[in-house]
Amino acid sequence: MTTATENNPLILLQNSEQMKINPKYRLLVASTSTVFGSGYLEYIIDDAIKFLKADEILFVPYARPSGATYDEYTESPKKAFGQKGIKVSGLHEFSEPKKAVQNAKAIFIGGGNTFLLLKTLYELELIDELKTAVSNGIPYMGTSAGSNICGIDIGTTNDMPIVYPPSFEALGFLPFNINPHYLDPDPNSKHKGETRETRIYEFHKFNSQPVVGLREGSRIEVEQGSAALKGPLTARIFRQGMEAVEVNDLGILKEQ
Amino acid sequence: MTTATENNPLILLQNSEQMKINPKYRLLVASTSTVFGSGYLEYIIDDAIKFLKADEILFVPYARPSGATYDEYTESPKKAFGQKGIKVSGLHEFSEPKKAVQNAKAIFIGGGNTFLLLKTLYELELIDELKTAVSNGIPYMGTSAGSNICGIDIGTTNDMPIVYPPSFEALGFLPFNINPHYLDPDPNSKHKGETRETRIYEFHKFNSQPVVGLREGSRIEVEQGSAALKGPLTARIFRQGMEAVEVNDLGILKEQ
Repeated sequence: MTTATENNPLILLQNSEQMKINPKYRLLVASTSTVFGSGYLEYIIDDAIKFLKADEILFVPYARPSGATYDEYTESPKKAFGQKGIKVSGLHEFSEPKKAVQNAKAIFIGGGNTFLLLKTLYELELIDELKTAVSNGIPYMGTSAGSNICGIDIGTTNDMPIVYPPSFEALGFLPFNINPHYLDPDPNSKHKGETRETRIYEFHKFNSQPVVGLREGSRIEVEQGSAALKGPLTARIFRQGMEAVEVNDLGILKEQ
Repeated sequence: MTTATENNPLILLQNSEQMKINPKYRLLVASTSTVFGSGYLEYIIDDAIKFLKADEILFVPYARPSGATYDEYTESPKKAFGQKGIKVSGLHEFSEPKKAVQNAKAIFIGGGNTFLLLKTLYELELIDELKTAVSNGIPYMGTSAGSNICGIDIGTTNDMPIVYPPSFEALGFLPFNINPHYLDPDPNSKHKGETRETRIYEFHKFNSQPVVGLREGSRIEVEQGSAALKGPLTARIFRQGMEAVEVNDLGILKEQ
């Protein structure tokens, strides 16, 4: 066992102190909204409802998948949760978005483009509002881009940088980064572009936080200061200067 | 035929005036350094030598593929061009990089991470130096990230945002953006992450410049104000508000 030292930021980051999560946080961090062969949120809706424990959800549509309008996008969660008797409002429907976040019973930030999502949150000055709400115990659900921004920064997004945000720093609810839609290298590929694994190794040449590669169908649930991996698949954990490992739970992130 | 108007930036951008390229530019903009089953630069080295017409090349290693050091990375072009009797120096070997760019006979910027490459060029204040050199007719070769930065901005890179550059604005040698390593959607994929095409359509919700999807093995050669598509494959052209088209040459970019 290695001892954490100030000269070794990697070990410092791995130690339990650095990996602590605010015990008030209630987060459902999902790799994707939709798995192959099933409808929007269908694979996760029952678990989400159980986790969020709210009869009303504030949906943040800013990531605009495929450039959908806020109204178009908000229709999807309205329908998915509506069928279960839960009301969804789009944050864009409120004239005062800060107040809407302050009054939310549960918050769901959907997927799309992570750069666009983060830029819009900065422009509307909602970063601190979201941090405050979640620190107060308001349950948060994210899918894809909405999960990416739960990490320390968006440096491990898969998205195209279609707009320039004022910073890559994200909500930082988790003491690590997320790579959603994690894809294993294809051994038969003839393509010479980088694999996901190569990209994350490059990330660790310049950044020390661990990265959790979250496969489609997987999610992380955070409660009482503890992060649990849920869903049928293992996750792939990348730590600076180490070989990636395949895990059934996230305990390794607390090891020294 | 539609006439260009000030109220229609799309058409303005498509019109020949906007699509003009400085007649002094000599650019070889390649999708990749390496095609499947062949060595570094092997598929392109003879064409590159004919195009660059220089016995000495200044190599810019800042994109650091897989986090390679500058020395490690520079070995590859040194070997590939060296075998053909052409000397390659790494820009990092010079104590005054600005002067090295000013004195270069030909410049080659290699692939790796586009964010890291652009950030380093800004930090070393080399953007203007590169623009001046290329405006003076110094031949420029780029592969992958080195091609990406020839476009208006890096908004259509495939890379992971592992570092935060002070701007996404790039060298702007081309009046359009490049998407290197262009990949067609896989009709058999069960993955729900965005396809390359979806990502570029999203880009065009917020940006008006055309995007050239350049497949591996393809390159663009720019001389005397004209851009020619070279290599065995067609390219895919994306224009704001239009369906993507498959082309053998880049003439469509000048059409109104």
